[in-house]
Amino acid sequence: MRNLKLTVRYDGTDFFGWQTQPGFRTVQESLEAAIAAITGEKRVRVNCAGRTDSGVHAYGQVCNFYTPTRLEPATLVKAINSQLPEDVAVTDCEVAGQAFCANKDAIAKRYRYVINDTRIPDPFLRKYSYQPRRNVDHEAMHRAAQVLRGRHDFRCFETEWPNRMTSIRTIQDIAVTRQGEAVYIEVQADGFLYNMVRAIAGTLYQIGRGYWPEAKMKEILEGMDRREAGPTAPPQGLFMLWVKY
Amino acid sequence: MRNLKLTVRYDGTDFFGWQTQPGFRTVQESLEAAIAAITGEKRVRVNCAGRTDSGVHAYGQVCNFYTPTRLEPATLVKAINSQLPEDVAVTDCEVAGQAFCANKDAIAKRYRYVINDTRIPDPFLRKYSYQPRRNVDHEAMHRAAQVLRGRHDFRCFETEWPNRMTSIRTIQDIAVTRQGEAVYIEVQADGFLYNMVRAIAGTLYQIGRGYWPEAKMKEILEGMDRREAGPTAPPQGLFMLWVKY
Repeated sequence: MRNLKLTVRYDGTDFFGWQTQPGFRTVQESLEAAIAAITGEKRVRVNCAGRTDSGVHAYGQVCNFYTPTRLEPATLVKAINSQLPEDVAVTDCEVAGQAFCANKDAIAKRYRYVINDTRIPDPFLRKYSYQPRRNVDHEAMHRAAQVLRGRHDFRCFETEWPNRMTSIRTIQDIAVTRQGEAVYIEVQADGFLYNMVRAIAGTLYQIGRGYWPEAKMKEILEGMDRREAGPTAPPQGLFMLWVKY
Repeated sequence: MRNLKLTVRYDGTDFFGWQTQPGFRTVQESLEAAIAAITGEKRVRVNCAGRTDSGVHAYGQVCNFYTPTRLEPATLVKAINSQLPEDVAVTDCEVAGQAFCANKDAIAKRYRYVINDTRIPDPFLRKYSYQPRRNVDHEAMHRAAQVLRGRHDFRCFETEWPNRMTSIRTIQDIAVTRQGEAVYIEVQADGFLYNMVRAIAGTLYQIGRGYWPEAKMKEILEGMDRREAGPTAPPQGLFMLWVKY
């Protein structure tokens, strides 16, 4: 059996997230069905770097699966794509080592949260950004975010804590930038807690719109209480950008 | 009664085009219902610059309507948007002269047709471009398109000819450019025939992929036979950019 690593891009709008749930359309199920149709296997099990929620998008999700197929990676990309619905595509395939695990071996993942800072919501961005109809100060957001850099207990941004062994993670990079009306919150870490980026985005939004002072971020981090942070920002603004191994 | 001019942006994906058709969701119907809800009128009739087909998008469609409302234009923009579904938005409103007609008074309209020239279709662009999975030579397309500049009988690009008084129009500008994998065909004219931009795009695509020589465009224009031109390119690649008066 070969262990294959896939890079996957999807528009999360019409998916109930990554993970298979009976009765719902998910990325995992679509991908496993497409692979099985090509390799002729009854059941394929795909393991991903990070399970995205309903409505969340991915440019570069990574996953791996074991398969007896002898098809070349380039051929597999074309063949699997021919079986996939239009809102998900495999962009790369390579043969990985036998022990490679897309989830456990990730050393860095980067997410982007998009706020479209415009008075009139843009119909073309409604599914690909959060459009609060309120202007935000991206420079204040950037400054406030810097306190999150480094190794911390991030339970203040974890929905349903405790649901992991530990809520300590390392944020390697966090930056808030602007391109015209689009404000990008990018967060890179060795791992993320459930809804962590959306909770950070929701908190930064409260600072960006002037509801909270910049210094509030430090208090929230140190308070270790999810109720002190901002609301979980809506899913359609979130994109998983890439995963590094 | 004031005559108001609106600029409207819409994602055409889930609309059956602009024009009201009983039993179908259209931009015109959504807009007229939103305006009527604000002005309290029983029936509002909106007249647009160019009726877009099912699946076609608009950044800057323009329309006008007569109304007794005394609300200020800026207030109307907010109020109408509060009643509109998320895939359509009014971006501007101004008071026009009594005789202003969004359709007849247009002196120029500009459309963009987007071909995403990539081997692997992008899930995020599936509703906003044509993705033929084939590379195109945008420079050859640009050169071939130049023969269409000026005043000509464009019936070779008109679906269901004859359906207008005349099929003579003036193309003021036509250009094919590239930004990465996106190839933009932009056509500006004093007016357009039914499906004209999509027929031009479909023809240029045949030239861009090397199926036809560049010189074929002149033959098609002079032949005045729709069957000699290329197929009508799919609607999701087309955007109405703006209208000038």
